[in-house]
Amino acid sequence: MPTKTKVNNNVKVSAIGGLNEIGKNMYCVEYHDKIIIIDCGIKFPEDDLLGVDYVISDYQHVIKNRDKILGLFITHGHEDHIGGIPFLLRQLPGIDIYAGALALALIRSKLEENGLTKACTLNELNEDSEIDFGELKVTFFRTTHSIPDTLGVAVHTPEGIIIQTGDYKFDFTPVDGQPAPNLQRMAKLGSEGVLLLMSDSTNAEIPTFTKSERFVGRSIRNIMGGIKGRIIFASFASNISRIKQASDVAIENGRKIVVFGRSMEAAIKNGIELGYLNYPKDTLIDPKEVNKVPGDKLMILCTGSQGEPMAALSRIANGTHKQISIIPGDTVIFSSLPIPGNTTSVNRVINALEEAGANVIHGRVNNVHTSGHGGQEEQKLMIRLMKPQFFMPIHGEYRMLKIHTESAQLCGVPKENCFIMENGDVLELNHKNAKVTSHYPASDAFVDGNGIGDIGNAVIHERQLLSEDGLVAACATVKMKTGQILSGPDILSRGFIYMRESGELINQAQKQVYHAIKQCFKDRSRVSEAAINEAIIDKLQEFLYSKTERKPMIIPMVISV
Amino acid sequence: MPTKTKVNNNVKVSAIGGLNEIGKNMYCVEYHDKIIIIDCGIKFPEDDLLGVDYVISDYQHVIKNRDKILGLFITHGHEDHIGGIPFLLRQLPGIDIYAGALALALIRSKLEENGLTKACTLNELNEDSEIDFGELKVTFFRTTHSIPDTLGVAVHTPEGIIIQTGDYKFDFTPVDGQPAPNLQRMAKLGSEGVLLLMSDSTNAEIPTFTKSERFVGRSIRNIMGGIKGRIIFASFASNISRIKQASDVAIENGRKIVVFGRSMEAAIKNGIELGYLNYPKDTLIDPKEVNKVPGDKLMILCTGSQGEPMAALSRIANGTHKQISIIPGDTVIFSSLPIPGNTTSVNRVINALEEAGANVIHGRVNNVHTSGHGGQEEQKLMIRLMKPQFFMPIHGEYRMLKIHTESAQLCGVPKENCFIMENGDVLELNHKNAKVTSHYPASDAFVDGNGIGDIGNAVIHERQLLSEDGLVAACATVKMKTGQILSGPDILSRGFIYMRESGELINQAQKQVYHAIKQCFKDRSRVSEAAINEAIIDKLQEFLYSKTERKPMIIPMVISV
Repeated sequence: MPTKTKVNNNVKVSAIGGLNEIGKNMYCVEYHDKIIIIDCGIKFPEDDLLGVDYVISDYQHVIKNRDKILGLFITHGHEDHIGGIPFLLRQLPGIDIYAGALALALIRSKLEENGLTKACTLNELNEDSEIDFGELKVTFFRTTHSIPDTLGVAVHTPEGIIIQTGDYKFDFTPVDGQPAPNLQRMAKLGSEGVLLLMSDSTNAEIPTFTKSERFVGRSIRNIMGGIKGRIIFASFASNISRIKQASDVAIENGRKIVVFGRSMEAAIKNGIELGYLNYPKDTLIDPKEVNKVPGDKLMILCTGSQGEPMAALSRIANGTHKQISIIPGDTVIFSSLPIPGNTTSVNRVINALEEAGANVIHGRVNNVHTSGHGGQEEQKLMIRLMKPQFFMPIHGEYRMLKIHTESAQLCGVPKENCFIMENGDVLELNHKNAKVTSHYPASDAFVDGNGIGDIGNAVIHERQLLSEDGLVAACATVKMKTGQILSGPDILSRGFIYMRESGELINQAQKQVYHAIKQCFKDRSRVSEAAINEAIIDKLQEFLYSKTERKPMIIPMVISV
Repeated sequence: MPTKTKVNNNVKVSAIGGLNEIGKNMYCVEYHDKIIIIDCGIKFPEDDLLGVDYVISDYQHVIKNRDKILGLFITHGHEDHIGGIPFLLRQLPGIDIYAGALALALIRSKLEENGLTKACTLNELNEDSEIDFGELKVTFFRTTHSIPDTLGVAVHTPEGIIIQTGDYKFDFTPVDGQPAPNLQRMAKLGSEGVLLLMSDSTNAEIPTFTKSERFVGRSIRNIMGGIKGRIIFASFASNISRIKQASDVAIENGRKIVVFGRSMEAAIKNGIELGYLNYPKDTLIDPKEVNKVPGDKLMILCTGSQGEPMAALSRIANGTHKQISIIPGDTVIFSSLPIPGNTTSVNRVINALEEAGANVIHGRVNNVHTSGHGGQEEQKLMIRLMKPQFFMPIHGEYRMLKIHTESAQLCGVPKENCFIMENGDVLELNHKNAKVTSHYPASDAFVDGNGIGDIGNAVIHERQLLSEDGLVAACATVKMKTGQILSGPDILSRGFIYMRESGELINQAQKQVYHAIKQCFKDRSRVSEAAINEAIIDKLQEFLYSKTERKPMIIPMVISV
């Protein structure tokens, strides 16, 4: 006779990433023994995470429950929604991935780069797809964002519909035949009964309605029409609509187009293959030909609009780019706004470009950029369309999540039905109630080189110390029986001070180490290596601080024989 | 018979700091054998100058010409105009410093802190002061800025007047009885004949007229009047008008005031002594009493409006402040805007405050801040008042300087009379011509601990490498005659990887070093220590990169016996 077990008929919704941050989105919707994962992104580390390449989510919850996973559904092809996939697949091979055409193409090239094409099944979605898993069914609705093919996800459960909007704005006049947001479908989901709305909070602080991409197109047309010399146009490589608009105007004005920057080249290749971009014959020319085309017949499309030091635009600005350098009369258009944290680097690139003689047009002073995320009015529109019983703001820092719940309350969601959660929090809900009941592991995992999670806060802290005042290493061989110093002490420093000009300081430091070792053996023979190392650290730290007011990391290397 | 020497009757004007940057202002006006220095500031280092405390100017030009120096004139008391004085005085004791009352008080406490009170003579200025040095005479004109007692400097030379505006805005309705800008005096200088105008370019990108401080006062009054709980008010400590306005409203509303943060305490002490601030008895209370006052009867004034991690506000937000922590219902007012580069830190503090339950009001969404620098219309007003023959934009990054010269040209200065210079460039001028004729040393000098200029780009580069992937040190004692390894090799890492969890990697690395040393001696006896060290670096670098895709700095320490 089988044991009677209590069946939990609640839906569990959690974010393994994407709350209190913009980046590394990853959400789970669970019902009985089934898990739907939505998105799997990376986050670019802030400056204080020294040497970290990417930050990804802690995947242990999904790895532990691998047998329950029905699939990974992708809302769109930005890195903060797909960038984690190679890291996830290494630990969780064999899962089904579902995504729209463009996102799928981007995922595919990512998998090829990482030799992971066989680690999963790729399934192409469009907004009419319905993926039926029995108790759970997944459907989609078209939205608009700064990359084509953006979908919101609806997970239909016996308790009601769970909506994850993905990143969105309401662009009612998208460009180049791309479809407008499907308001009818959103409204229909709202009529059918949305249990929980998880909605993009990025622009919760902006009290307006985000301008249409078409508006930017007009500005680009006006500005580029009046430019005489070369045009260098920088934007996010993934913003294919923007690239298309700039390319169209360039071609109308009889300009040839050259593409610089690996991700821009890849984006244009993808865009052409999928039919988003269409360049007449001979308009795209080889980078080697760039200096053969007259300036007023040329537009350069490039990466680097965020001031990234290794991107094409920074190298052009600094004169370290192989093919071109700035000549007076060039115009550089930043079709972008600096992400907070990048302002200084972007300003540095603008200054360098202008010093080299370029005229620079950037988003702050011209209408050559619009956001991909909806402002407060669009967030309210989404809430009014979906009429959710419960509301969870996602994809935003705390203050954005907070303002977003205030909007939800203004749109009729009761305060007690709004949940500002943290990564890992599990919201358990049914058609009557919702409550945070548990917590999954959801710490940041650092990727550095090919290591995932093998460095943590302790290693980062050491890097911070090293970055502040460098290091001083002291090396000696000591006969432990007698305390005799057989070789050394030798002193060496890095990142601390100019060694050559500090001979006297180094000599004195050497003496300090000598005395520190001798002192250890003064009263007794045989001391531990650890004790000698500690004595060296104390002595050197004190001595060097008294001389320099700096605190380099002391690295004692006593070899005992 | 004395040799007949050619006398150069040109005025030489240069910036040792303050061009293509915002920070470390320092200007020289020279005529015959006389030098007037204007301002002597520091710059706070950008993030990539790891471990650098301040950046100061290269003082060698003025040190070399110490006998010619008539005095150092200070426009106002901000760090980017006075912060370099202690460093200058250590190398150039005995000079005369001239400044307005508040700047002088701030300089005096700086000198006391550094034991330098006897290293110079301090002379108090007001706008009617005239300092006559014979051929040169220095006069002043009142301006307005985000600190009281701000002066522009006019150096009268036989060739015409040289103007350095200092930092300014045109605040026609300053608060608390502070005087408005002296338009009459500026106009009179303009009538007398300004040869060169050197003018503040900070807000050259802003196409408007900066709002008056009085406007901010009204917003603060409206906002604070409606707040029920505690108010935490954060602003720059030097913005005494702002502090006064917030204090006045707090007192009107029956609130007591507590001050947190060393620089805020010092500013208030100074402000009271000089009569800028006036607190009725019992309104300023001891920090220890902070928790005895009911929330609606309390305002906390504190530092940290730029998200500085060690300032009072960050510590309050993180719960690490000794006296207080956030309780729900607290309102925090950021009466400031983040300086570019600080946006991320400020956002972090706002998020932490809101997560702890505070309501946060910041400059972006409310009118609780205005700039201390004039926008384009005020820059044009200055040019129209001064009617300069030649124009040099100062105090700004390149793109600001460029826009500022465009404004000058719109206001009638011929294009060829506008000079966008670099630090060190020397503009030589007389009543007919002006030309950049030479260049003084003007590199950045880094201050770290008590060292000035003893670290440079090479040391910073080592810190950058260390901060990326940490270090691996390898130590061994080798008998050079035989190649016998007497002790070691020992391996140690910092900031590279969790050592404990990487035992196998460290073992393998040890073997690599062993083989590298042995290989050196394979074909011959006696090799150089340098050659062994190099072999270790090559071998370890290659090995560790193949295993981890990281490039830690390799520190070989072979002791030869």
